[in-house]
Amino acid sequence: MTHLEENDFKEDIITSDSENGILQGGEKDLRTVKANPNYWYPIAWSYEIDRGKAHAVEFAGEPIVLVRPENGEIFALEDRCSHRQVPLSKGVVEGQAVRCCYHGWTFDTTGKCVDVPYLGKGKLPNGVCAYPCQEQNGVVFIFPGDKTKAATTPLPKLAETANPDYKTRKFNPRVNCHYTFMHENLIDMNHQFLHRNIMGRIKARFLGKQTGDNFIEVKYSFARVGNKQPLAEALIFGKHHQYEDGQQPIDEIVTIRTEYPYQTLRVTSKDGTDMISLWVCYLPQGKNQEKTKAFGLLSVKRPKTPFLIDAIWPVFGLFTYKIFLEDKDIVELEQKAWIDQGKKDWNVEVFPVVRDLRTVLRNNGV
Amino acid sequence: MTHLEENDFKEDIITSDSENGILQGGEKDLRTVKANPNYWYPIAWSYEIDRGKAHAVEFAGEPIVLVRPENGEIFALEDRCSHRQVPLSKGVVEGQAVRCCYHGWTFDTTGKCVDVPYLGKGKLPNGVCAYPCQEQNGVVFIFPGDKTKAATTPLPKLAETANPDYKTRKFNPRVNCHYTFMHENLIDMNHQFLHRNIMGRIKARFLGKQTGDNFIEVKYSFARVGNKQPLAEALIFGKHHQYEDGQQPIDEIVTIRTEYPYQTLRVTSKDGTDMISLWVCYLPQGKNQEKTKAFGLLSVKRPKTPFLIDAIWPVFGLFTYKIFLEDKDIVELEQKAWIDQGKKDWNVEVFPVVRDLRTVLRNNGV
Amino acid sequence: MTHLEENDFKEDIITSDSENGILQGGEKDLRTVKANPNYWYPIAWSYEIDRGKAHAVEFAGEPIVLVRPENGEIFALEDRCSHRQVPLSKGVVEGQAVRCCYHGWTFDTTGKCVDVPYLGKGKLPNGVCAYPCQEQNGVVFIFPGDKTKAATTPLPKLAETANPDYKTRKFNPRVNCHYTFMHENLIDMNHQFLHRNIMGRIKARFLGKQTGDNFIEVKYSFARVGNKQPLAEALIFGKHHQYEDGQQPIDEIVTIRTEYPYQTLRVTSKDGTDMISLWVCYLPQGKNQEKTKAFGLLSVKRPKTPFLIDAIWPVFGLFTYKIFLEDKDIVELEQKAWIDQGKKDWNVEVFPVVRDLRTVLRNNGV
Repeated sequence: MTHLEENDFKEDIITSDSENGILQGGEKDLRTVKANPNYWYPIAWSYEIDRGKAHAVEFAGEPIVLVRPENGEIFALEDRCSHRQVPLSKGVVEGQAVRCCYHGWTFDTTGKCVDVPYLGKGKLPNGVCAYPCQEQNGVVFIFPGDKTKAATTPLPKLAETANPDYKTRKFNPRVNCHYTFMHENLIDMNHQFLHRNIMGRIKARFLGKQTGDNFIEVKYSFARVGNKQPLAEALIFGKHHQYEDGQQPIDEIVTIRTEYPYQTLRVTSKDGTDMISLWVCYLPQGKNQEKTKAFGLLSVKRPKTPFLIDAIWPVFGLFTYKIFLEDKDIVELEQKAWIDQGKKDWNVEVFPVVRDLRTVLRNNGV
Repeated sequence: MTHLEENDFKEDIITSDSENGILQGGEKDLRTVKANPNYWYPIAWSYEIDRGKAHAVEFAGEPIVLVRPENGEIFALEDRCSHRQVPLSKGVVEGQAVRCCYHGWTFDTTGKCVDVPYLGKGKLPNGVCAYPCQEQNGVVFIFPGDKTKAATTPLPKLAETANPDYKTRKFNPRVNCHYTFMHENLIDMNHQFLHRNIMGRIKARFLGKQTGDNFIEVKYSFARVGNKQPLAEALIFGKHHQYEDGQQPIDEIVTIRTEYPYQTLRVTSKDGTDMISLWVCYLPQGKNQEKTKAFGLLSVKRPKTPFLIDAIWPVFGLFTYKIFLEDKDIVELEQKAWIDQGKKDWNVEVFPVVRDLRTVLRNNGV
Repeated sequence: MTHLEENDFKEDIITSDSENGILQGGEKDLRTVKANPNYWYPIAWSYEIDRGKAHAVEFAGEPIVLVRPENGEIFALEDRCSHRQVPLSKGVVEGQAVRCCYHGWTFDTTGKCVDVPYLGKGKLPNGVCAYPCQEQNGVVFIFPGDKTKAATTPLPKLAETANPDYKTRKFNPRVNCHYTFMHENLIDMNHQFLHRNIMGRIKARFLGKQTGDNFIEVKYSFARVGNKQPLAEALIFGKHHQYEDGQQPIDEIVTIRTEYPYQTLRVTSKDGTDMISLWVCYLPQGKNQEKTKAFGLLSVKRPKTPFLIDAIWPVFGLFTYKIFLEDKDIVELEQKAWIDQGKKDWNVEVFPVVRDLRTVLRNNGV
């Protein structure tokens, strides 16, 4: 672990500023860049769709119905009967097909129309779109883009969800902002000031970054500069020492990585072992993608006394939820400012990490 | 009563399909066709407007005030003072005139300004529009179009409202869809699948249709294909026989007619006598007519034991209301789909009856 | 005091009509004229902003934060961090500065950015706008326009707020209409008909007007033409005599003056002394200024029995509040009509006073 001086960090900013200018003019407004559909996106939790039921979801304003037959695999169709455009999710699951609630038109797992009760089989009309669909570790994924690319595009690795050494919490909030604000919020740890009332005053130290065409990874360490360590944090990480100058270095390293379109955060102890692993994907909602439904999996390493984590789980849950609510409020205020300013991004970003992230999001989005 | 084979019906569709094509391209989108104002439209129930009171209503976004003087006939004016445009319906009825609540400008039955309290009679300003207005059987009608056509345009016949052999229920729901979805919903009896939970599974048999420049009339018979006959239906029609194959033919014939701009439904017993008679008119709401206020009169023939119908009336009311709520939900979903799809009609209609109805609505609308 | 005959008043209207035409065509729609920002506008009551706190307000859609340090004068900044555009009013007041809640950027009383916790002092980014700000008699004023004009533009005189012979009520309603409707409502006393249920039927007599480039002042007397004098009015003004013809002259003179952008109303007794003095300013809300937040100060002369006014104060408050609610309803209906008519002003104004007022508002607005 390298403790860079603060000055190094500031030099880095100054250099970047003189190269790029504080405002990046001429580019497409980041908040109008659409999420690239040629990836596997989480769209529901498995437990949300009972056997024999249909379930309505959405990708960027496109209505999608997830259907789980009594027997067999879940499938995903356009949630719009090809007859009168009403949602198939209001219909009835029959075998490996779904029957529209209105006039009873029926569509199979591929979207083909296989029955119109008052029409001969020889003259069946067009069907509806089908989406590639898979389940993994309790998450339902669809591939909303070019179907021919689905087979060769891997599912993402979901943090430590399948690892029995970890306990995992699912969370699934709706946030009224463009997905890019969510990426920026998490990757810029200088925003710890926002959580001062919950976490105490913590100062982030930037340790370095790595970038590539479709990713950026950043490392931070932290020091507590005021207030006491909160209970939930002490229970997970152990109690940190307090020094006489009021500063209290925090030993763990936090690594945040956006690898398009997913984002992860890892907390590593000073001996290099993982302690917390977060995986999150931001599902765009609405045609203009001004809303987001996040799918998050937060895995925490079980301590040696295994029942302890279950005991503190509710406290930890409340703690992370309260932090999340502060983040949700602030990114929604960012979105509101963007709308109030005539859908123009006035953000003046001085932190090179956020500028690099923007390049990744802009170049990989559509 | 002719029992056509199902095959005949399917042939009819196939023939129509090959003639017309499933999608009717190039025409004006039906959901943007405005209701023709040169008809008498029901706009309120008589009991809604007390003597000496003014009552606000609307035709296609145009505000209208109905005024019932203490003595004399109801009259209808533009609901907008010619001074500062506030609603005259907030004002005071004085003799055969209505006085605006704000500065007291006063308008007579013809819309002429007859008093401005602080202005000489010789210099009275312009008045407001007046609408031809009539009452019939408890319904107030206005003629929103070209006034010169009002006198030669007959009021509609209101089913069996005035017939003492019938008991009539008024209903007056607001539905958030274009009026054309309402016409289509009622005329296409293949949508019985929608009501499977209330009425049991019923299959419609198309018996034939008649069309003209301003009307289409369709006849159906029905067979019960599953579930039991509901109580309210059995009370009105008597109990239907159940056959061993599970099918249960229903003897009554249903005739549905759109005669622009009105729609009727008649249920006739096997001996040819009328049992139920529905009259309905869809009043467009809002400038773009994307909402509808329906005025319906449902008349049921009194059985020989006359008190029986009063006893079952609440059950029958609830039964029809629950069916209506299903229809309201589905047509509002159709409207929503139309809006979500950029105000484009993607409906793929294979049933010739609905295609003919569309022609009537398109050619008679404006 | 001159009692003009009603005829004189009508002649005046007729003359104006023939000169100007009832409709004033070709001009910019009055409801799109923006309030001129080069004046001191009330924006909050002093008691609303505690020491050490920030408070969000708005002028015509521009977000503004009022900051009151623990020590020192209140100051006003753009309520938008120059970093990520979130409201500074969510932040923390530190000394003579406010720190943004998100990443901790800090701005002083002039809007200059004085700290970014993770950035060197030599490289601080741009700050935010500051607004000239003053407090007077419990009202916080800002100068939203050209700052160089602030010093030479006087604060308005706030009726009798500072006069111990008067008791003053503050009111601060939000009204969903353009500020010009508020000016017109108050200056045209022919709208007494609106308040007939609260004040009884009162007829205004126009006594004359004075106009200038930036003001119009009008005088009225009144006569009661029906109903009884309300209690609250009798308590303030004394009981008026009732004559046999049912008319009851009211001795007081009412003077209403719009002196851009403020409006005042004075009630003077027959011996010429002031009894009631109202000062009001309409703060535009929203970018298109289709909403208004009014700041009103209503001062009533204390009677010789001084405790009496305190005893009747709640009754008087309710009385004026009920009158205000009627005014609020009607001006909001005017605004609604304007929007429903495609944001066009169809008002046909026959009263010269309102026409002159419009000229003042149009020529002094922007």
